[in-house]
Amino acid sequence: MSAFGIFSTPGTAPRVGWREGDEVVDLSALGEPYARGSLNALMALGREAWDRAIAAARTHDGPRVPVGEIMSHLPFEVADYVDFYSSLEHATNMGRLFRPGGEPLVPSWRWLPIGYHGRAGTVVVSGTPVRRPHGERVAPGASAPPVFGPSQKLDFELELGFVLGVPSEAGEPVPVDRFADHVFGVVLVNDWSARDIQAWETVPLGPFLGKSFQTSVAAWVTPLAVLEEARVEGPPQEPPPLPHLAGGRDWALDVDLEIELNGSVVSRGNARGLYWTMPQQLAHATSNGAPVRTGDLMASGTISGAERGSEGSLIELTRDGAEPVALTDGTTRAFLEDGDRVVLRGRAGAVELGDVGGTVVPA
Amino acid sequence: MSAFGIFSTPGTAPRVGWREGDEVVDLSALGEPYARGSLNALMALGREAWDRAIAAARTHDGPRVPVGEIMSHLPFEVADYVDFYSSLEHATNMGRLFRPGGEPLVPSWRWLPIGYHGRAGTVVVSGTPVRRPHGERVAPGASAPPVFGPSQKLDFELELGFVLGVPSEAGEPVPVDRFADHVFGVVLVNDWSARDIQAWETVPLGPFLGKSFQTSVAAWVTPLAVLEEARVEGPPQEPPPLPHLAGGRDWALDVDLEIELNGSVVSRGNARGLYWTMPQQLAHATSNGAPVRTGDLMASGTISGAERGSEGSLIELTRDGAEPVALTDGTTRAFLEDGDRVVLRGRAGAVELGDVGGTVVPA
Repeated sequence: MSAFGIFSTPGTAPRVGWREGDEVVDLSALGEPYARGSLNALMALGREAWDRAIAAARTHDGPRVPVGEIMSHLPFEVADYVDFYSSLEHATNMGRLFRPGGEPLVPSWRWLPIGYHGRAGTVVVSGTPVRRPHGERVAPGASAPPVFGPSQKLDFELELGFVLGVPSEAGEPVPVDRFADHVFGVVLVNDWSARDIQAWETVPLGPFLGKSFQTSVAAWVTPLAVLEEARVEGPPQEPPPLPHLAGGRDWALDVDLEIELNGSVVSRGNARGLYWTMPQQLAHATSNGAPVRTGDLMASGTISGAERGSEGSLIELTRDGAEPVALTDGTTRAFLEDGDRVVLRGRAGAVELGDVGGTVVPA
Repeated sequence: MSAFGIFSTPGTAPRVGWREGDEVVDLSALGEPYARGSLNALMALGREAWDRAIAAARTHDGPRVPVGEIMSHLPFEVADYVDFYSSLEHATNMGRLFRPGGEPLVPSWRWLPIGYHGRAGTVVVSGTPVRRPHGERVAPGASAPPVFGPSQKLDFELELGFVLGVPSEAGEPVPVDRFADHVFGVVLVNDWSARDIQAWETVPLGPFLGKSFQTSVAAWVTPLAVLEEARVEGPPQEPPPLPHLAGGRDWALDVDLEIELNGSVVSRGNARGLYWTMPQQLAHATSNGAPVRTGDLMASGTISGAERGSEGSLIELTRDGAEPVALTDGTTRAFLEDGDRVVLRGRAGAVELGDVGGTVVPA
């Protein structure tokens, strides 16, 4: 691992650290912006400063702390959180589940990266337990009345997110070829989802309480510069995107992904197949003139592959619960149970990404 | 008007002011938290402190500045922005326009206040021009290919928002009867909308770029305590809400509303008819365990009445452009044109709310 994060040790204040393997290099002696409790000040400095920071981190002879002795904190203050829907396979799976018999993809899907805003205030760092949310739900096929209670369909979503460093101006979209000038790095994301709450509330304004209870991100942000060797070309796009979304396919990432549930690996996939790339996501999000701020988090949406066993959520892996997954402890899961522990992992060649762990606690 | 805001005069720093009529009382000499450039510190203090602040503002003999001589700033740092859909008449109008022939209300509508997250980073203060956004759109009835360009259907939405002062804890919903312990005050909101962009992108994840380019709020936040005399009972609700949303109907607000477009009043309505009240909106938003933060903005969604001429958006007033509204200058409008000036006004008995003005500038 080669990534920035915010850490503390007992009795000390949170500060910037550089994680290399299983050690964390304390960078706080480098002064501003490393003595702070979030990466935002560093992230705002821009690409040349980020490169210098990586070089400084790799050569700094400050204190090194074993990762087992630190406490991790949310690495950046989240400004706005946007969640995309950029996996063709995920969107197809969800369309089949929620609109059976119809065309799984909506007409706009291949013309723009569909997305929506999530709740920035409930983005938490890996390791934070996830409390099973309450909400209204109806029985499958029923329309009313709903009942209110703990979700019966708690799920995870494996996503890859990118974090904005350099803000943009209102009215000035960020073109696909300026992606790396604005984006500091990437994090794995678990966009916890309550499928029963989501199904009831989602028409016509989209997901709200089915997602807003918690979103978990890795404690370690991997800078883009560290991922150069993992860059690959994204999949072909047909029809060709309109000019404002054309290009940016040189920033697909060859990142092997895996989801572990109570010690069993239940899914293995790769991020390189995402239909819409990160530069296209950013170009789209700013194409109406909306500016981005330091700390904006934009996530891919669930990353699913075409093969069975490569889906990024339980609702897909289990066909909405109809085909529970078998765990190595002899149990099966349709959706998450209290006490379940989920860990999302990613590896870009030799570069491990920060993982995202969380345990379900009762409502 | 009796409201808090952030103001400056030439060469001075933004600070807290109390607006009474056409004068602004400079409160910065009262020290923390009045010397700051946002209301957030004051808003975080809680209800007793707010009451003391109002009393202090009303008796303070600090400098008084004519409102014509000040510059207004965004009154609070927006944490998360949630937009509801709480007007029965608006939801019905939109359902008829977007799903003609079908049931205008979705099955969940009377069971919970439908809502979604908007973009906090593009909330701006009244007076900020709105730049016509670019986006993808298709001709009505067509499905593809889209074209990319300036929106042809720029619209306003008249809404009433409330601003969170006291945060809540994760896992602890804010019940309807705790509304006034957490909420600092209200603001008028113009949720600018590009209807063509919105129509193309909105299925299945809801509005995104059709809204995220800009949302304007009043420069003056009216504290809840000032609105006591405007409190009325909300409309009857059938079916009765589930227990977690029952109650809170004592916080409907009798606020006369009006929309002025280029000097012509094009709509007159009242906020008291909103089906879902503000306490119910807040209870719903936290019912899954999501916490709120100081600076969260929650808006009602467009406020429309049942009569012609009381609709809160052009798409409703003009039946999606089919029946343009006539202005007193002899022109008509289907949607907004460059140079158009929109002002939203509200009055709760003797208490005027801060207005929200904005002029459309070209893409």
